[in-house]
Amino acid sequence: MKVIADLTVIPLGVGVSLSRYVAACEKVLAEAGLKTKLHAYGTNIEGEWDAVFSAIKRCHDLLHEMGAPRVSSTIRVGTRTDRDQTMEDKVRSVETKMD
Amino acid sequence: MKVIADLTVIPLGVGVSLSRYVAACEKVLAEAGLKTKLHAYGTNIEGEWDAVFSAIKRCHDLLHEMGAPRVSSTIRVGTRTDRDQTMEDKVRSVETKMD
Amino acid sequence: MKVIADLTVIPLGVGVSLSRYVAACEKVLAEAGLKTKLHAYGTNIEGEWDAVFSAIKRCHDLLHEMGAPRVSSTIRVGTRTDRDQTMEDKVRSVETKMD
Amino acid sequence: MKVIADLTVIPLGVGVSLSRYVAACEKVLAEAGLKTKLHAYGTNIEGEWDAVFSAIKRCHDLLHEMGAPRVSSTIRVGTRTDRDQTMEDKVRSVETKMD
Repeated sequence: MKVIADLTVIPLGVGVSLSRYVAACEKVLAEAGLKTKLHAYGTNIEGEWDAVFSAIKRCHDLLHEMGAPRVSSTIRVGTRTDRDQTMEDKVRSVETKMD
Repeated sequence: MKVIADLTVIPLGVGVSLSRYVAACEKVLAEAGLKTKLHAYGTNIEGEWDAVFSAIKRCHDLLHEMGAPRVSSTIRVGTRTDRDQTMEDKVRSVETKMD
Repeated sequence: MKVIADLTVIPLGVGVSLSRYVAACEKVLAEAGLKTKLHAYGTNIEGEWDAVFSAIKRCHDLLHEMGAPRVSSTIRVGTRTDRDQTMEDKVRSVETKMD
Repeated sequence: MKVIADLTVIPLGVGVSLSRYVAACEKVLAEAGLKTKLHAYGTNIEGEWDAVFSAIKRCHDLLHEMGAPRVSSTIRVGTRTDRDQTMEDKVRSVETKMD
């Protein structure tokens, strides 16, 4: 089952500068072969359900290894059976209605 | 890795009455042996990472089988390595600070 | 416009024990006269749109005053025009389908 | 108080094609003078707290006027007092750590 997801990961107990941790997660997602796109409040992810969620799990593991005693994530995940759709399709579909 | 999570699942394309679908998901989570607590905007879930996320996947699968062409979920998930904590611990910890 | 909402507030840069901050937010919501119900990953809130969001804003302000340099919240918010519904109605509606 | 936010809005009871509704919200945010950036699972928003949340409220109102009996949104919102930061700063800060 293919998903389009969006991940915001927040390590706790490591101060206020989180970009080093977010970057580490980005690498985990990329190494998992997932299509991703970083934005200002998270990362869009496209891939198979199992691949996406095992990468997010590795991301939590890694942040704990990097010293974060707590990690709190927010994940949006969408699946559809009516048709195949990419991340670019979703954005384009909105943009064409804004003309 | 143990998690405390919170799931809001929204089937799309099936009208505005979603409780039948949410109830079906609740059963999936219960059958997976997970500890859950329903609230007005989702469900708290406590369990091992893999058990929690494979149950959420089954929930998406089931809602598609029930006729929903799209399913969009929001998942909050927290992990911690500093100490063991239950859902009840989290609530109690806040309540004791409110006295 | 009436809303049912769900708030998870995370202060950053103040360590891993967040319950003191969550409790402070609970008091803000209660003092605003909103109906609330704490759960293990947030707080259900019922009230008028403006009252709910001005209380959430005061919550961010207060956490900054308490010393948190960053505050990150996740808010789910639902509105409906087809009928009036309380937080208890939503839970009961799911529970009756689980029998 | 300045915020960086992220909004995902889901109208219910209007079928599975939501892009028309998302596009209408984008226009509301733009007309409010807010800085926005659409992505595959929502929209980044930068602006003052009150301007951002009154635009999100207008978005719910508009979707109801367009025929959606229910609207459910997920909003992430971050505030910080330690320094000023734009949406571009946040993305760049992560990207520089990925080299």
